[in-house]
Amino acid sequence: MENQKNEMISLIGQKRYEHILRVRDVAVKLAEQYGISVEKAEIAAYYHDCAKAQNFDEIYELCKKYGLKLSYDMQKAPKIIHAFLGAIMAREKFGVEDEDILNAIRYHTTGRENMSILEKIIFVSDYIEPNRKFDGIDEIRDLAFRDLDRALYKSLNNTIEHLLLSDEYIVGDTIKARNYIMEKYKWENSLKHL
Amino acid sequence: MENQKNEMISLIGQKRYEHILRVRDVAVKLAEQYGISVEKAEIAAYYHDCAKAQNFDEIYELCKKYGLKLSYDMQKAPKIIHAFLGAIMAREKFGVEDEDILNAIRYHTTGRENMSILEKIIFVSDYIEPNRKFDGIDEIRDLAFRDLDRALYKSLNNTIEHLLLSDEYIVGDTIKARNYIMEKYKWENSLKHL
Repeated sequence: MENQKNEMISLIGQKRYEHILRVRDVAVKLAEQYGISVEKAEIAAYYHDCAKAQNFDEIYELCKKYGLKLSYDMQKAPKIIHAFLGAIMAREKFGVEDEDILNAIRYHTTGRENMSILEKIIFVSDYIEPNRKFDGIDEIRDLAFRDLDRALYKSLNNTIEHLLLSDEYIVGDTIKARNYIMEKYKWENSLKHL
Repeated sequence: MENQKNEMISLIGQKRYEHILRVRDVAVKLAEQYGISVEKAEIAAYYHDCAKAQNFDEIYELCKKYGLKLSYDMQKAPKIIHAFLGAIMAREKFGVEDEDILNAIRYHTTGRENMSILEKIIFVSDYIEPNRKFDGIDEIRDLAFRDLDRALYKSLNNTIEHLLLSDEYIVGDTIKARNYIMEKYKWENSLKHL
């Protein structure tokens, strides 16, 4: 991957590249914590923002180049495009073939129902990497290493609350992801008390 | 309508009946303010909670009786059932035929995209009737008589925030209603500045 450093930086810029490395460091630790492949977590984190070009004109150009047709949600919430585009570019430009890694890239911004452990780890790592600052982040950082589902739930809730309060479009998949993990968590916790 | 008072009270109880009358008073004022039929607003408000029986067993019995099959959302968020059931009962039990009135009853809890003025008025009246108390309600009460779309938007946002913070299931229609009215409002406001 590191031999693609210059190519990545020319796509997304130095600052975003440094963000990617911070997400990778968190993701690796979480992969160790939850017993999944560290290598997959590294790859998914490294490419998660590979389509986050520095302005929307470039992103739209890349959509054309890689044949990504914009869904209704993508038109209404263009911030999510880079994740879906990123999964295509990770495969076609950077040779990533593992479906779980591609899904972790694809759903790292919106989330979705029934996420894999790797998908959850990339979503949460992106949310808590050391440079992120907002109310309640310390609680989620702490939770991430103790209870990944709970950390994901809190991350999704915070994301939705932020969109609500800043008059931004909310994508249906994000609500579905949040409802799903909430109910899974409640269900599993109710089983513990049987 | 008033001759159905006893029947309504036996269905929903005295307290809920008084809530209905308070919603009706607000809805009538809003109908005058926005130049729609006061009579329709009265009828919609009077029957909006006609299916809100005093416990879920009774509501499920009424669903069977009136042939309402529970959707996935209704199973996950049983609080919304009474609205859909209420539209059926308003028609079959109380003889309401006007589609706009029936829709105002049907969508008074979840909201939906592209609501009519009557639908908005019933949704907002239910939200701001004098006995409702929560942070920010005075702002919405004030807004309701100046800018119905803005009042609806704030009511939907508050509803979603409440569901988020209390770990309750969020129905897709509510998010769609909120996104829709937000974008309509933004669009119309951008036209004003042309």
